[in-house]
Amino acid sequence: MTRLEGTLRDEALATLEAAWHEADGRDALTRRFDFRDFSEAFAFMTRVALAAEAMGHHPEWSNVYRTVTITLTTHDAGGLTDKDIALAAAIDRIASQSV
Amino acid sequence: MTRLEGTLRDEALATLEAAWHEADGRDALTRRFDFRDFSEAFAFMTRVALAAEAMGHHPEWSNVYRTVTITLTTHDAGGLTDKDIALAAAIDRIASQSV
Repeated sequence: MTRLEGTLRDEALATLEAAWHEADGRDALTRRFDFRDFSEAFAFMTRVALAAEAMGHHPEWSNVYRTVTITLTTHDAGGLTDKDIALAAAIDRIASQSV
Repeated sequence: MTRLEGTLRDEALATLEAAWHEADGRDALTRRFDFRDFSEAFAFMTRVALAAEAMGHHPEWSNVYRTVTITLTTHDAGGLTDKDIALAAAIDRIASQSV
């Protein structure tokens, strides 16, 4: 995996939905998703869980009723890597297909 | 629903697994669950999600790889109610059946 810094990082972030932003005080990306209700939120989480497991890279995330907040970072690398960008892109695809 | 205070609260808490404890700075209960990996953690979350949806009462929760942290409170009541105890009991049953 590649730790993302400088131009490489800017280019990688530019490929994602603009809603992703740097997490406060951490080398991580975060994005909040709002759904209509818990059922929709958890359906989204289930699809993300399947994608994450297949990719061997997992999110930090929380859910409160219809809201899901996802934070991505690579613990082994101590910061943002290409694995996070790949998972973020997969999450963007899933979110764009959600009801 | 019944807001739980005093003796009623003590009696209700005594019916749950001892690992539940009062959340810092909130009228809420919290418990952390550790599993062997993400797959086990998310399987547990899926069972909890189904129970919560059936009960019409949902957790605040977060997941980081093999760890799930659940916080229960009743927003409409501004604190802990019998709904939280019922959901905590259901979660205890699911956790006791998990691998």
